[in-house]
Parts: sequence; structure tokens; C-alpha cells
Amino acid sequence: MNKFPVLEIFGPTIQGEGMVVGRKTMFVRTAGCDYSCSWCDSAFTWDGSAKDEIERLTAEDIFARLKEIGGNQFDHVTVSGGNPALLKKLHELIDLLHEAGIEVALETQGSRWQEWFTDIDDLTISPKPPSSKMLTDWGILDDIVARLREGDRLSHTSLKVVIFNDEDLAYAEKVHERYPNLPFYLQVGNDELEENQAPNLAQHLLDRYEWLINRVVESSKLNKVRVLPQVHALVWGNKRGV
Amino acid sequence: MNKFPVLEIFGPTIQGEGMVVGRKTMFVRTAGCDYSCSWCDSAFTWDGSAKDEIERLTAEDIFARLKEIGGNQFDHVTVSGGNPALLKKLHELIDLLHEAGIEVALETQGSRWQEWFTDIDDLTISPKPPSSKMLTDWGILDDIVARLREGDRLSHTSLKVVIFNDEDLAYAEKVHERYPNLPFYLQVGNDELEENQAPNLAQHLLDRYEWLINRVVESSKLNKVRVLPQVHALVWGNKRGV
Ligand code: SF4
Ligand code: SF4
Repeated sequence: MNKFPVLEIFGPTIQGEGMVVGRKTMFVRTAGCDYSCSWCDSAFTWDGSAKDEIERLTAEDIFARLKEIGGNQFDHVTVSGGNPALLKKLHELIDLLHEAGIEVALETQGSRWQEWFTDIDDLTISPKPPSSKMLTDWGILDDIVARLREGDRLSHTSLKVVIFNDEDLAYAEKVHERYPNLPFYLQVGNDELEENQAPNLAQHLLDRYEWLINRVVESSKLNKVRVLPQVHALVWGNKRGV
Repeated sequence: MNKFPVLEIFGPTIQGEGMVVGRKTMFVRTAGCDYSCSWCDSAFTWDGSAKDEIERLTAEDIFARLKEIGGNQFDHVTVSGGNPALLKKLHELIDLLHEAGIEVALETQGSRWQEWFTDIDDLTISPKPPSSKMLTDWGILDDIVARLREGDRLSHTSLKVVIFNDEDLAYAEKVHERYPNLPFYLQVGNDELEENQAPNLAQHLLDRYEWLINRVVESSKLNKVRVLPQVHALVWGNKRGV
């Protein structure tokens, strides 16, 4: 069996963002990313700072750990990263979870296709806006969306763009115009990753959220849209493992 | 054409709760309710305090008002109350909106069936827990869910229970066990309706949200569940018309 680089397994908690916001879930965080976003809130997954914490686990190891921690208090697992779409054989884990009646969510920036994308119950593709300093490969993104459409998976898929400024919002409009039939989520960017007082962060992020709502309300290009904060950041601030 | 009792038309803003939380939407608030929940956050719709503000509007009047206020910046309308399920001919409004390519969401406590329920795109049924001091008529609720199932509308329907205390949570478990196939949302109750400082309210509601998350995490009866705050209350506090 394949071994996957895993940095964290925790929960149950709630999904803090995107298409299944609020869903009771366990988290499996994989190591490694092909991007290096300027504002990455999980930089420890790829910048080497947590490399001693990476475990190499099989799908069965991961499943056993999930059951050990989560008992019978979950039926949903979120795989996050880093970019879990770097892992070719992740279907081994997805299949094992599905056999146990557990749903699987996964988030990736949309820089790589994997065949197992069509098995994910809640697939979030989150292309990165200009503030990240990354460049979107539109050809790859088009290809991913086309394959998901062919596989009749659009009802299991959403697009999410994190917004820090007006340039990001213009990028989001472009994404939404390009893929108008995909459920579209806008999320307030967290620009205070060093803030360690949860109440201060919450108030700041709620102010930013209000700003983003106002900008979306003004735009006739952003109608079929959902605008969300990261609710876990409102509750727990920048703490890891919750 | 029928005339509907309307108290507020406003937006665009975002839907603050439930199955389409974050969705850019307009609101139409109808007057009148067959309940009188102890903690009702819209008591002005039925307690007589705003009776001079009630307008009697046809579907066409409402649509004209929505366009006047929202321009081309929306494609989604939420009908709330009070209990809009008291209005027999609401299909007149729903049809008009659908003809214009506008989706319709509606929330009701599930005390009455209306034929037009099967036309609603995002139907939230929100039975009221013990803290409301209201009694659930399970026969009516069973009948509503059965009719929605027969009409193949379950993918357009969700259940939502507002939680103030442990007794409410036990009630929620009962609702979820009775209708396990319906998407199920738990929402933090707002027990500070008199607080007029939005930041104070936000911090209090986030504390209550954390409490609710912890209780749900512990329960193996509440797995396929989504737990949400009212994001509009976090941003705008108890202000009306946002
Ligand atoms: S794609 Fe995600 S994990 Fe990778 S650097 Fe960007 S924000 Fe971080
Ligand atoms: S059902 Fe809703 S509108 Fe009616 S009293 Fe209860 S909370 Fe208020």
C-alpha cells in the first residue's frame, strides 16, 4: 500500500469554510504544496518548518487513526493540505472511507488533475487570486472543470476564491464568468496570521467580511455567489488543530 | 391578484443562516405568524408593534419593488416572516420570480403545508425546540416531509433547529432521528436580542457557537449535521433591514 505524507489528523470539529461550512468532520492534513502563496495559512505544510512532524501513513493507518480519535462521532472526513492533489493514489483512502459510509471532502487549488477527483463528495477547487503572487494556469483549470462535467460531478464540486483586495475581486469575477455553472464561494482572506488573540482576530475578520459583502452587493457580475467568513477563525483564531 | 401582507423588502445582502448561508439575496418579510416563540427575533411581524408598517402588495408590486431596490444586482430572493406558509397564493410571487430567472428561498416552522412548497428552490423547515415554549405537531411535520419526498424535493429542502440549551439539543436529536435523510442544520440561538453593540453580541454569539460545536462533537447521534452561527448577527448585530 502507498504511504502518504501526513501532518495532522484531528477532530471531530466543524468545517470552517466553503461548500460544507459547519459540517461536522474530521481533518487529515497532507504535507507538500506546488504553490507558495504569500498569505498561506498552512505554510508549515510545505516550508520545511514542520518537516519533523510528517508521518508516512497508509490509507489503513489513517483510517485507524481517525477511528481512534473520532470514535463513532463522525461520518465525514476532510482532506486538506498543502495540496492533496499531489498524491496520485489517494483513492486508496477515499475508497476505504466510502466503504465505511464516510463522506469525503477535499480542497485543492486546481493546479493538477487526479482521476480520484470524481470520487470526492465535496470537492472545492480554490484558484489563487493575484494577492497570493501565484499565477493561475487556466488551461489546467479548464481541463479539470471539463473532466468533472463529463463525469457528471458538478453537483459535488464548488469553486472558492479567497479575497484580500479589489484586484482579487476582479479575478473572482473572471473566474465566475469563465465557469458560471459551478457553485461559487467568496471567502474573506485572513491577513492577520500573527494575531494570537481570537477576539481581536474575529472583530477584524468580521470588518473585512462586511467590506467583502458590500463589494459583492455592488457588483452585478457577482450575483449567483455565496460570501462566507472562515467560521473556525472567528471562534478559535489562528490556533492549529481545531 | 392576491395581496400579501409585507413588512420589509430589502437587499441585496447575504443570507445569514441555514442551507444557503452567505448567498447573495434580497429579502421579502411577510407579516403574521401562528406561533409566538419566546425568543422570536422577528416578533414585530406578529405582535402588533409594527402593524402600521404592513403594506398589502400583489406579487407584481413586490417584484417591482425588488427590481427598484436591487436593480440587476441579484438573482435570488428569500421570503421570510413571520410564517410565510400562512399565505395560500404565494405561488403567484414564486412563479413571477422564476420567470425572471430568480431563485426563491423560504423559511417556515413546518406548522402548515402549502402546495407551492414544491416550487421553492431552498426550503428551510425550522421546527421550534422546547425553549421556544411552542409544541411541535409531529403529524403535520411528517406529512410535510412525506409530500416533499413524493414530489422529489428533498434536495431542495433542509431542516434547521435553533439551539439555546441542552433540552433543545435533545429535541434536535429527535428531529434528526425522525428525518435522517434530510440535510440537517443546527443554529446558535440569539439570547441577547436587546444588545445593541454589534461587537459585544458577536463575541457572545461566538462563545455560544463554540459551546454548540462542542456539544455536537460529543454526540454520536449528531454526525450528519451542519452547525452554523447567524453570520448576519455577527456582522450587524440586532439591526433590522440588513
Ligand atoms: S495552495 Fe494552499 S497550501 Fe499551497 S501555498 Fe497556497 S494557500 Fe498554502
Ligand atoms: S415561528 Fe418564527 S416568526 Fe413565528 S414566532 Fe417563532 S421565531 Fe417568530
